[in-house]
Amino acid sequence: MIGASLGLAARAAGFRVAGWDEWPEHAAVALETGALDGRAASLEELLAGCDWLAIALPLDATVALLERLAASPPPARLVIDVASLKVPVRAAASSLPSFVGTHPIAGSERSGPAAASAGLFVGRVWTYEAGAPEPARSAAIELIAATGARPVAVEAGEHDRALALTSHLPQLVSIALAARLGEAWEGRDAGALCGPGMASMTRLAASPWSMWRPILEQNEPAVAQEVRALISILSEAAEALEAGRVESLEALFELAAATASRLPK
Amino acid sequence: MIGASLGLAARAAGFRVAGWDEWPEHAAVALETGALDGRAASLEELLAGCDWLAIALPLDATVALLERLAASPPPARLVIDVASLKVPVRAAASSLPSFVGTHPIAGSERSGPAAASAGLFVGRVWTYEAGAPEPARSAAIELIAATGARPVAVEAGEHDRALALTSHLPQLVSIALAARLGEAWEGRDAGALCGPGMASMTRLAASPWSMWRPILEQNEPAVAQEVRALISILSEAAEALEAGRVESLEALFELAAATASRLPK
Repeated sequence: MIGASLGLAARAAGFRVAGWDEWPEHAAVALETGALDGRAASLEELLAGCDWLAIALPLDATVALLERLAASPPPARLVIDVASLKVPVRAAASSLPSFVGTHPIAGSERSGPAAASAGLFVGRVWTYEAGAPEPARSAAIELIAATGARPVAVEAGEHDRALALTSHLPQLVSIALAARLGEAWEGRDAGALCGPGMASMTRLAASPWSMWRPILEQNEPAVAQEVRALISILSEAAEALEAGRVESLEALFELAAATASRLPK
Repeated sequence: MIGASLGLAARAAGFRVAGWDEWPEHAAVALETGALDGRAASLEELLAGCDWLAIALPLDATVALLERLAASPPPARLVIDVASLKVPVRAAASSLPSFVGTHPIAGSERSGPAAASAGLFVGRVWTYEAGAPEPARSAAIELIAATGARPVAVEAGEHDRALALTSHLPQLVSIALAARLGEAWEGRDAGALCGPGMASMTRLAASPWSMWRPILEQNEPAVAQEVRALISILSEAAEALEAGRVESLEALFELAAATASRLPK
């Protein structure tokens, strides 16, 4: 989805886009839906013919490809990735001078090129490594801006710590809530009594485990810390309910509403 | 929002709708936007002229009005409410033979008549008390069906226990997550690094405390039990992360995805 959305946006901005996917049906859909000008027959053919290379793969596959590229440097003058963590990809790309780790803060629980959209990145933040080498860094900024996204420089470690809070925690919370609903489903008429609130709170639960496993593995300590911080807030709320002190939750509701209103719409 | 949406839907179905609101500006907006045929000058005037009465107020105000109506029974052949808990309203309406407690499982974090929509209830479940007396019960079913909602009979106690899971828990989780984000906001660039996932997980945090306080007060034990159940799932997840056993989360992701896919779209 991210790769094909980038293809659609880059083609609309005047880039010529070739693509390759390990799953031929994905590349075929991307070509049919206009995300590509053409398909390469192999990764080698793609690497031989491309000037700028964008890797749109799950984290573990991104790291594996970067290690392979580092072993035999590609001709591309720019290599970016879009994976959700930047410390592991920086480590894998340490010998690639044309590499800039990036992360579009956009997307959805859906995956695959049929879910792509040319407007996916418009107005969204798209981070790039603050310390990436020039001239690759400037090229990355140009490509990001061409999609309509806002390029924001973030250091890799700071990125990964922040995303533990802003992305990995909400993912686990959505999973936990959907799992709790699943546990209690039988005999409760639970499905019929779920409204739009439960629907939006469990939307992320459709996001694939295969994408999340490497993210959670590589960001374990920061994510665990955020889960513990949330448990602490929920435990105080449970204690307030159990002690009949509901009014003590007002400050929590106020902080939450004020914070939600500061988020980008 | 619920009252004006019901007005829009009922007028579209051929009902003639008069309204009254303690806040005159709310009634003025409802009239301007076509949710009402006319405004009553007072609650007494409304009660004297109406055949079917729908009370669309927060839980505590609903209970207060029902106690007042029970003291001097209104002429209406049907009285329904739309509050989020059914046990407290049933207790307050015990001497009102024309009363049926109902609950549309629809809505949003927004409030007020300007946020109303004629289609808000289309395809949604709208519960009514399984044991409410006839002929009021049949009239309630007719009114619910006229909005495009699906009338579903639920016993009051079962309703309130189920909603602790399907509505009150996701509300508190959204609040806790937004509050955690608010705690950690400074120095993290947290706002810029929040994407659509955090946005949907904190959408409910805009829902007003004044509406939630009486719900949480009246459903304390059931809500506390659900919060504890969620804490237990999150604690297991935190332990798995801390112990480097991320793969043990796969079953949780699978249960969550399967449950989310069963929810009404």
